[in-house]
Amino acid sequence: MNPAGSCFLDSLTVTSFFGNDEMRGIFNDRALLQSWLDVEAALARGQADLGVIPRRAAEAITAAARVDRLDLGAVAAGAQDTVHPLVPLVRALVEACEGDAGRHVHLGATTQDVMDTGFVLRVREGLAVVRRQVEELIRRLRRLALRYRDTVMPARTHGQQALPTTFGLRCAVWQGELQRHRARLAELAPRLLVTSMGGAAGTMAGYGPRAFELERAVAADLGLGVADTPWHSAPDRFAECLLALGMIAATAEKLAREVYFLGRTEIGEVYEPQGGGQVGSSTMPHKRNPIRCEAVIAAATTLRAQVPVALQAMVAQDDRDMGVGMTLWKLLPECFILAGGALERLLEVFAGLGVNPAGMRANLDVTGGLVLSESVMLRLASHLGREEAHTLVRRIVAECLEEGRPFAAALRDDPQVTAALTPGEIDGLLDPPSYVGHAAALVDRALLNSEAT
Amino acid sequence: MNPAGSCFLDSLTVTSFFGNDEMRGIFNDRALLQSWLDVEAALARGQADLGVIPRRAAEAITAAARVDRLDLGAVAAGAQDTVHPLVPLVRALVEACEGDAGRHVHLGATTQDVMDTGFVLRVREGLAVVRRQVEELIRRLRRLALRYRDTVMPARTHGQQALPTTFGLRCAVWQGELQRHRARLAELAPRLLVTSMGGAAGTMAGYGPRAFELERAVAADLGLGVADTPWHSAPDRFAECLLALGMIAATAEKLAREVYFLGRTEIGEVYEPQGGGQVGSSTMPHKRNPIRCEAVIAAATTLRAQVPVALQAMVAQDDRDMGVGMTLWKLLPECFILAGGALERLLEVFAGLGVNPAGMRANLDVTGGLVLSESVMLRLASHLGREEAHTLVRRIVAECLEEGRPFAAALRDDPQVTAALTPGEIDGLLDPPSYVGHAAALVDRALLNSEAT
Amino acid sequence: MNPAGSCFLDSLTVTSFFGNDEMRGIFNDRALLQSWLDVEAALARGQADLGVIPRRAAEAITAAARVDRLDLGAVAAGAQDTVHPLVPLVRALVEACEGDAGRHVHLGATTQDVMDTGFVLRVREGLAVVRRQVEELIRRLRRLALRYRDTVMPARTHGQQALPTTFGLRCAVWQGELQRHRARLAELAPRLLVTSMGGAAGTMAGYGPRAFELERAVAADLGLGVADTPWHSAPDRFAECLLALGMIAATAEKLAREVYFLGRTEIGEVYEPQGGGQVGSSTMPHKRNPIRCEAVIAAATTLRAQVPVALQAMVAQDDRDMGVGMTLWKLLPECFILAGGALERLLEVFAGLGVNPAGMRANLDVTGGLVLSESVMLRLASHLGREEAHTLVRRIVAECLEEGRPFAAALRDDPQVTAALTPGEIDGLLDPPSYVGHAAALVDRALLNSEAT
Amino acid sequence: MNPAGSCFLDSLTVTSFFGNDEMRGIFNDRALLQSWLDVEAALARGQADLGVIPRRAAEAITAAARVDRLDLGAVAAGAQDTVHPLVPLVRALVEACEGDAGRHVHLGATTQDVMDTGFVLRVREGLAVVRRQVEELIRRLRRLALRYRDTVMPARTHGQQALPTTFGLRCAVWQGELQRHRARLAELAPRLLVTSMGGAAGTMAGYGPRAFELERAVAADLGLGVADTPWHSAPDRFAECLLALGMIAATAEKLAREVYFLGRTEIGEVYEPQGGGQVGSSTMPHKRNPIRCEAVIAAATTLRAQVPVALQAMVAQDDRDMGVGMTLWKLLPECFILAGGALERLLEVFAGLGVNPAGMRANLDVTGGLVLSESVMLRLASHLGREEAHTLVRRIVAECLEEGRPFAAALRDDPQVTAALTPGEIDGLLDPPSYVGHAAALVDRALLNSEAT
Repeated sequence: MNPAGSCFLDSLTVTSFFGNDEMRGIFNDRALLQSWLDVEAALARGQADLGVIPRRAAEAITAAARVDRLDLGAVAAGAQDTVHPLVPLVRALVEACEGDAGRHVHLGATTQDVMDTGFVLRVREGLAVVRRQVEELIRRLRRLALRYRDTVMPARTHGQQALPTTFGLRCAVWQGELQRHRARLAELAPRLLVTSMGGAAGTMAGYGPRAFELERAVAADLGLGVADTPWHSAPDRFAECLLALGMIAATAEKLAREVYFLGRTEIGEVYEPQGGGQVGSSTMPHKRNPIRCEAVIAAATTLRAQVPVALQAMVAQDDRDMGVGMTLWKLLPECFILAGGALERLLEVFAGLGVNPAGMRANLDVTGGLVLSESVMLRLASHLGREEAHTLVRRIVAECLEEGRPFAAALRDDPQVTAALTPGEIDGLLDPPSYVGHAAALVDRALLNSEAT
Repeated sequence: MNPAGSCFLDSLTVTSFFGNDEMRGIFNDRALLQSWLDVEAALARGQADLGVIPRRAAEAITAAARVDRLDLGAVAAGAQDTVHPLVPLVRALVEACEGDAGRHVHLGATTQDVMDTGFVLRVREGLAVVRRQVEELIRRLRRLALRYRDTVMPARTHGQQALPTTFGLRCAVWQGELQRHRARLAELAPRLLVTSMGGAAGTMAGYGPRAFELERAVAADLGLGVADTPWHSAPDRFAECLLALGMIAATAEKLAREVYFLGRTEIGEVYEPQGGGQVGSSTMPHKRNPIRCEAVIAAATTLRAQVPVALQAMVAQDDRDMGVGMTLWKLLPECFILAGGALERLLEVFAGLGVNPAGMRANLDVTGGLVLSESVMLRLASHLGREEAHTLVRRIVAECLEEGRPFAAALRDDPQVTAALTPGEIDGLLDPPSYVGHAAALVDRALLNSEAT
Repeated sequence: MNPAGSCFLDSLTVTSFFGNDEMRGIFNDRALLQSWLDVEAALARGQADLGVIPRRAAEAITAAARVDRLDLGAVAAGAQDTVHPLVPLVRALVEACEGDAGRHVHLGATTQDVMDTGFVLRVREGLAVVRRQVEELIRRLRRLALRYRDTVMPARTHGQQALPTTFGLRCAVWQGELQRHRARLAELAPRLLVTSMGGAAGTMAGYGPRAFELERAVAADLGLGVADTPWHSAPDRFAECLLALGMIAATAEKLAREVYFLGRTEIGEVYEPQGGGQVGSSTMPHKRNPIRCEAVIAAATTLRAQVPVALQAMVAQDDRDMGVGMTLWKLLPECFILAGGALERLLEVFAGLGVNPAGMRANLDVTGGLVLSESVMLRLASHLGREEAHTLVRRIVAECLEEGRPFAAALRDDPQVTAALTPGEIDGLLDPPSYVGHAAALVDRALLNSEAT
Repeated sequence: MNPAGSCFLDSLTVTSFFGNDEMRGIFNDRALLQSWLDVEAALARGQADLGVIPRRAAEAITAAARVDRLDLGAVAAGAQDTVHPLVPLVRALVEACEGDAGRHVHLGATTQDVMDTGFVLRVREGLAVVRRQVEELIRRLRRLALRYRDTVMPARTHGQQALPTTFGLRCAVWQGELQRHRARLAELAPRLLVTSMGGAAGTMAGYGPRAFELERAVAADLGLGVADTPWHSAPDRFAECLLALGMIAATAEKLAREVYFLGRTEIGEVYEPQGGGQVGSSTMPHKRNPIRCEAVIAAATTLRAQVPVALQAMVAQDDRDMGVGMTLWKLLPECFILAGGALERLLEVFAGLGVNPAGMRANLDVTGGLVLSESVMLRLASHLGREEAHTLVRRIVAECLEEGRPFAAALRDDPQVTAALTPGEIDGLLDPPSYVGHAAALVDRALLNSEAT
């Protein structure tokens, strides 16, 4: 319960559905302020190394730069007064420093050097969580792919049963998409996890003659790379990360929608696990709602919609543009929290996923054999050519649909068919497990090719 | 300062920039829970009126349905347990009722009846604030339009000075757009401010034989209209409201960007007011940053980006779809808070707007008279025809630009021009105030035509 | 087949799926150029009425202002040369005029006066089509609502069967949403269907002393209203229209997704009609794909995504801003064509919709009676109180799900239940048609309340 | 001029502004159909290699698979009849084959195998163009960075002059962002440029026992990689590409907006080149509009807005989902054409960019020296400490602004200042070129670090 009462990723209504505790622990005021203080301290240490400020001042600043040593109430009040997000924190740090060390705080720096680098430190942690979650999801899907490698189920295209596939292959496809996301995250990380000590407008004018060395020192201290060119008006690094989260959200939503659909009352092929105390409905006692999937869908929909804000933030004016830049202060935490929550929910879903092979098999019988029309058509094609075979089978299918007749019987009665196929062959062609193609081998290929462990 | 630390419309970093207190007072957990309780109580009273439940039970429920009488900690814990947003509150209400009145709580209702109607109650308040803010902004702009009715400034098109206009006309145009928004809000209100007591899936099955009467009674009790058809899968009413907020945000962003631009160092025609303690930069003491305009831009950009979520929420499946529906729980509060903040910031900007007529006039001299080329061309057109006059003046302009020559001199030297115009006429054509057309009359027409006071 | 080959709303691949011929007839180069010529002619006539140009010049301009009298090849080449969308057309018109009437073409006008008013003329026609399509869709849905007023089917919430409803009620809800769209279109029309003759930057400076009269004359000639304030930098009128199209697209997508889902192989409750020569798959002869629904989904998804462009276009700079303004030239035609196509496809779907009441009824048996748990719970609530009844029925339901037992049998064996209900009462409570609540009356209310015929 | 008249990336109105001929040559019906035929031919050759079909059949299919040998009118008519995008082309190909080779066309393939692989072939060409354009833009910006390495201009933050920078540094920053885009395109290419021969639902069931070999053969024939897992429901590869285009569009828009702003009448620091016949305005002969920049902005805005469609397309249902999949048919060509046009326009802008160093220098004088307040503050900080120096300079600045006094004079009169600085030192601190920090070294670092040539 949030007493302040106006926080909508942290309110009673939505907390259970959006976000997760781990990500909330990374993206919150306290943690962000600490990151800013970490940058101020690293800057002071770097300046001491270069002899720009006294070593003892850097030590005092380092000692003072701890969020639990500052008066955060005063900082908050200062933010209202100054209408500035960082100045009150710098002032509090100055005052917290022993002796006159405070004189050497924030020297040559601009607000953005500190704030953006601090955000990078938060993002580094958030990204680590997302990467671990994606890794874990890949692992669970690979286990499912292996376990249900040969479990036959209907493949559906255009919303209609198409032909048989296996649940293992479907899981293999899903983990393949997540593996590509893993690669994308790995590729963007070195671009993202950098700092830039450009000063007020990127020229490093305030940092003195050894500014490049200072920048490298701060970066090394914080474990970050150095941006080739000042980033003040180039937030494409953040945008790229948010776009990647948007893609991951889209995949998460797809998976959630699949489980949601496959668990529908009339489909019953897989089930979202249900907790003990969980209540589906305030009025319908039988409801077992896939509420985690729905939460994933809601979070992913919301997260995907933030992607245009990230692109908009890239269209920055001048040498710094807070009109769009400010949006990132809200966007970065929100997107990570939404992503973390969506992935955690999805991991719960796949951790306890109920799978019903009998239901899958039963659904394959709904069409009275028509789901194997391709199998029959292709066999006939070797006798009649593909186009003719397609036309013939289409005609027979139409009769089946009109007269509600089983496909096998209709095939057995057709002279063109029986000229080519024996009744036994027809039956063989209509056996779903016989027509899953290379599903199992595709699972094997996918499991082999991956770098996952 | 939000101790929970993960609320990004209410965090230290962004609170000063996004949102405003009034809207946070309307959209917060406590207020929302109270609205849900209000609906439960209205339902009980309606059922008592119809004899469905005892009168005394309704009275007990009404007495208990106050957020300060419930254990919100238990409600929050229950939300985690049940993974349900309403059931724990209903349970708390049941327990808070005297005697066995609790047996009659939430009778026949579904979660959505209560939650969505509760949201409508919050939205009603939020909408009233936005309408009042829009009204106030219109009023301020109309005052500026009147005051600067005849203040000449450059009109700019394609980023280039085009011809003279007046600042009053610009303000008149801006208030015209806001008047249309006012009309839009008035039109959507009756569609939005309704309730629907459809029960679990819209059939009202749980409400007994007099369900229509009950629905009307609850609506009347809460001061709402009745939805013609159940709204369970038709959130277009909410979406329409959010789209209107998106349009208002776009207008707010436009106005903020205008002030931001007109206040640029090199333009200097208007100024965002600066507060006493306000600090522009942590390192550049001279900075007077238009931080309110930037906050409006950031909030508006963020808000506009939520519009697609509202449209997505309309694509609901089945008879109720929490996959998209849940997004509204976050979307509605967030959009209203962003809108409220953006409009409050903008009202501050226009309340203390600095206007610099001398700067406007000076900027009109930058082109050496070229900004009046249409004036000259049209006068020549009456002698030469429009196409020929346009070609002639284009040629003279080209020479001026090439040779850095004043327009007046070049005109006076051209035989085709002097065949048609005297030097005095040329000078008259190049006097900016003489060529503002019907700007003043347009201001008057705008001020007359409005229904605003 | 488009020989130019790069038109993607008119290419071989997508023409069958996106757009429709009627809207393509309204939004195409030829029609748009004619509208611009119509505005030039109306302007000339207005100026003649006021004595600004000779009557005979206006007559000559009117006679020449026909797209089939101009050399469109030259106009196209001129557009490349001048990088200007209108100047070449004005030049062609000037040349096409008899005598020296061409001298009086486009007098005092700016490009935007003509182009935007011309767009309004196109939009007026496009809007008329959309309104007619929405009207027709309402009519079809109302017929279905009446016809299937009492046809019982499962209501689904959270993707799970919830309780019985009727197909008629679902159709009534759908038409209700469309009725609100109809109202929205009616409300925005007077704001949208206006002209503004503001000249180069909205001051009307070029139009002479009787500019207001001229503006009224042109508006009356074209059957449009007059914008209160110049619209040069206020495209909210267009944006509002595009947002309304976006909402209609969302509804169209919802309906298409419903038909798509209800026609799934395993659901089989309704069917998209299939054309004679239609081929579902190049390889699976049995496929009957809901391709029209898919086309609606694709068009609506695409159209909804344009809404942010419309909002972005509202954030215009200065007195005219082609950076965003130009987007409308592509956006308006595209959105209308997408909307027209989506609605036409949807009308086809509902014109021939197959409805399978037996399938609906059969699906209600899938849960073994659990779909009526609310019915049982509410009856027991009158004996036990709502909370206790809910808990009791939840327990029984859990046993049914675990043991695969029919609900009726489990109820008949439970002493708490049998203490309250006879076996006959239990059977009655579990009969789906007995528990559709006020579905029929809701259909009647919806059909009565509407203004549709 | 497009006679069909409804193509809005190819209409008279917008052709000059959106898109470019090169990309239109890659993405058009004819080229796309040829790519589909190329895939059919490669499939036939692969099947011949494996002995699945006769060698001579493959040769005949290869010979027939040329778009200029088919009756495209019949194909277009067939698309209307069958409501299928590929079947009519396959039929035309079957008929065009000599002898009975047509019997072996499209064997085992599903529509998506052919269509999507064909799209990949188009995308490969489109991507090559974008990569070349990005490369060329980097090159031009690097040349500008070098040339204007030491050209002083105002850095602006929050819309206000902040301190001096150099135009070379700004160009260096811009090329840095484009270099990151280049890296992104290089990274995504191997994921994107693949094929998948999954057959009807990804199981490869129709391709016979040596399906894996066949897939490798087709891929090798077409110069593509092989997708690890079937891509039928995993369009993240396309989405990633479109997101990258969206990012590039955002950067293009930023650069265009910068040139647009810096070329404003009152700023005059750089100029978009103007063509000879170019007309700025139909009524104002002096207008030199940055129409190319505006076209870039319009195209980029439009392109960025398509990114959510790409993300939506990722949320595919089942084993194939044409509801979202169909959107890609329109999306891919459109986004590439928009990107190609925006980059071509931008290349034109930077190829002929006018740069006005004198204007830049003059603008630095607008503030009367205040633009160097950081320089003064930091020097004083070494005497007074940072916080105290900031407070002192803020006070002096406030007096300057109030009294319209030059900064130098005010500094020279302040005793605290003069206690620390001599008049000569003050003058030195206020000389803009002396305070560009490491701008030149940053340019050098950027030019060194790049892999560009």
